[in-house]
Amino acid sequence: MTVRIERIKERLTALALIGRDEGGGTTRLSYTPEYRQATELVKEYMQAAGMKVTIDAVGNLIGRYGGTSPELPAVLTGSHLDTVPDGGAFDGAAGVIGAIECVQAWRDEGFIPARSVEVIATVEEEGTQYGLVLGSQAIAGLLNESDPEQMLSPAGRSLAASLSGFGLDPAAMRQAARDPRSISCFLELHIEQGSNLDDEGLACGIVSGIVGIDRRRITIKGSANHSGTTRMDQRKDALVAAARFIGSVYEQARSGDGRYVATVGTLAVHPNAVNIVPGEVELSFEIRFVAGRDRDAAYAHALGCLRDIEKEYGVTVSIIPMQYAAPVELDAGIGKLLADAARELGVPHRSMPSWAGHDAQVFAKLVPTAMLFVPSVRGISHSPQETTRWDDIIIGVKVLESVLRKLALT
Amino acid sequence: MTVRIERIKERLTALALIGRDEGGGTTRLSYTPEYRQATELVKEYMQAAGMKVTIDAVGNLIGRYGGTSPELPAVLTGSHLDTVPDGGAFDGAAGVIGAIECVQAWRDEGFIPARSVEVIATVEEEGTQYGLVLGSQAIAGLLNESDPEQMLSPAGRSLAASLSGFGLDPAAMRQAARDPRSISCFLELHIEQGSNLDDEGLACGIVSGIVGIDRRRITIKGSANHSGTTRMDQRKDALVAAARFIGSVYEQARSGDGRYVATVGTLAVHPNAVNIVPGEVELSFEIRFVAGRDRDAAYAHALGCLRDIEKEYGVTVSIIPMQYAAPVELDAGIGKLLADAARELGVPHRSMPSWAGHDAQVFAKLVPTAMLFVPSVRGISHSPQETTRWDDIIIGVKVLESVLRKLALT
Repeated sequence: MTVRIERIKERLTALALIGRDEGGGTTRLSYTPEYRQATELVKEYMQAAGMKVTIDAVGNLIGRYGGTSPELPAVLTGSHLDTVPDGGAFDGAAGVIGAIECVQAWRDEGFIPARSVEVIATVEEEGTQYGLVLGSQAIAGLLNESDPEQMLSPAGRSLAASLSGFGLDPAAMRQAARDPRSISCFLELHIEQGSNLDDEGLACGIVSGIVGIDRRRITIKGSANHSGTTRMDQRKDALVAAARFIGSVYEQARSGDGRYVATVGTLAVHPNAVNIVPGEVELSFEIRFVAGRDRDAAYAHALGCLRDIEKEYGVTVSIIPMQYAAPVELDAGIGKLLADAARELGVPHRSMPSWAGHDAQVFAKLVPTAMLFVPSVRGISHSPQETTRWDDIIIGVKVLESVLRKLALT
Repeated sequence: MTVRIERIKERLTALALIGRDEGGGTTRLSYTPEYRQATELVKEYMQAAGMKVTIDAVGNLIGRYGGTSPELPAVLTGSHLDTVPDGGAFDGAAGVIGAIECVQAWRDEGFIPARSVEVIATVEEEGTQYGLVLGSQAIAGLLNESDPEQMLSPAGRSLAASLSGFGLDPAAMRQAARDPRSISCFLELHIEQGSNLDDEGLACGIVSGIVGIDRRRITIKGSANHSGTTRMDQRKDALVAAARFIGSVYEQARSGDGRYVATVGTLAVHPNAVNIVPGEVELSFEIRFVAGRDRDAAYAHALGCLRDIEKEYGVTVSIIPMQYAAPVELDAGIGKLLADAARELGVPHRSMPSWAGHDAQVFAKLVPTAMLFVPSVRGISHSPQETTRWDDIIIGVKVLESVLRKLALT
């Protein structure tokens, strides 16, 4: 079989140009015209590889390469097609285009496996519009109780409106839920998005599990007041209080030994005027962790810090949970197949946790699930500078192809 | 003569209802439909007091009460009609309605002074759209070199478009410039916006001068990166760096003895996503000061702090000057008239600097200029909670009327 790097390169480049920003990044948010365009393009790639293509009720794109025993549960592979705002060319797309390349190589070779293989390009994995890993959650039936009319994007557009605009019926959304018995396993190729593989000069990471995420929205209320006439000792400056929190949680996370990371990624000031002491600040606070006890300690520290700033700056703090995902262990059996394949191909590799959330964390609840990482140069991701060397991409696709072949044989 | 508190109360309340926000504040930004509505209402009040009303080429509303010697330079009084977003009912409006009340009292009494008296309601004093004290700057001829097509509001609307929308000819803007020889002096009644008068139980402040303002826009550039996969020791988090700056300049200003104040009032994070380490932060930094040497020391400290965070967090910092206004001394002669009037009326008062910028700082460049402060309850301003006791308003208007009468007699 031959997986061809030129074809992969051309396709990842073509995808990155859809939604290209001025600064060289790509913004391909779920359900937008750019997302539609990307879906059409990937559909063509799937069809060219001999797959029968469908779009499910929530917008996931699925290409099926029929096996000789189509009654057997299918092997599922792929990744997501949406990006963060101003994101890179590899996050998600590498796993979609890489999986299509494996099937394309089989098609070129005339190989037909026993099991059918399905390549999936999931929607809304990044969660920038309607919540993390939404597409795979729909497949897992986790959105069956959700009302798409009530789910709003940051711009205030409902998921129902987005689905309609995408040509889907919002009332049929739960039809995306799939019988797990139709799937034998899920295997996702993805960029590491961290620098561990790159730092250590390894070409592949076999993902042992996915870290947990705890996200909160924190509102700090002080008093808006005139920036000239309000003496420093009279102020209840919500931004000064927020600054103390941001510095404190950063220092605390930094002084740990890498068992968790903490981030304040969004911050809004009200009223946000040059000449007004900030009266209110809203910010996001995220902890990612391998073990629950590390989350507990980090969150307790953050709470203590918030209590301190209430006293010191005369502000009041409220906290709303945004998202909680427990750490997830991936399938050790498929992990061993991946390690074996890497060894056979002479590829330096190691086992590692994933610090990023992935569709795999949802599929792991349904079927045996595994992930394969390729290196991110200098660990940069969610950025226009996100890069993976083409040499590493091809190695990852070769390992993926080798394991998919084994998984689809029986 | 009789100035009537019921009439003042009714009018300030009516004005506050134009542009009323959900939270009880008022947003009456220059050139908006709300601003137009307020202009029409104040015009009616001026006409009812026997004034001839005009709108100048930049949108300042001017009512002229003709004196017996109309060839003499006129006494100018008044304040501004625009508010900050979500502002209070007294800032600016008190000086406009208070000045109209003085003339109305004269009209009711049948008093006609020697000099004409002009009541002005200036536009865009707050500078939220096109820059601080824009209306009085236009009168002072300081905008003669400015191109209204090039001056943009935060929403991206040009001053030219705003002027046209307000029924004015942008090409004629410089006609707002006025011959200083047509004005004998300027006297402004305004709320203190600080708590000094309220703290000390004084009803009037005679303003000795207006503090200087130095405003900069500071951009801190780090690296946007994935919030899960980027280890704490690898981050160049622009928001963490900004937080350090915000905390440091606050502590430094607070440890001083009140000779300057420093504020970070606006802050924007890019890309501002829950799951991305902030790559860039833009913030405003303002210093207000009585003496230049205090500004120099405060700014030097801020620069040192920015240099430190460049080293510590691996970010780069750039600084753009936004605005600089030197401290201004007001007219001691009119100040003495104000103090005399307060004494005659048995009003406890004192001399004090103004920590806020005012139209008076511009008029002081043209003609002898003075200001009279009335107390702000708990010093709150630029906030829906902004309040001045009606008892204090009436005292302020009485002092104003007494001095205007003296200034207009000769």
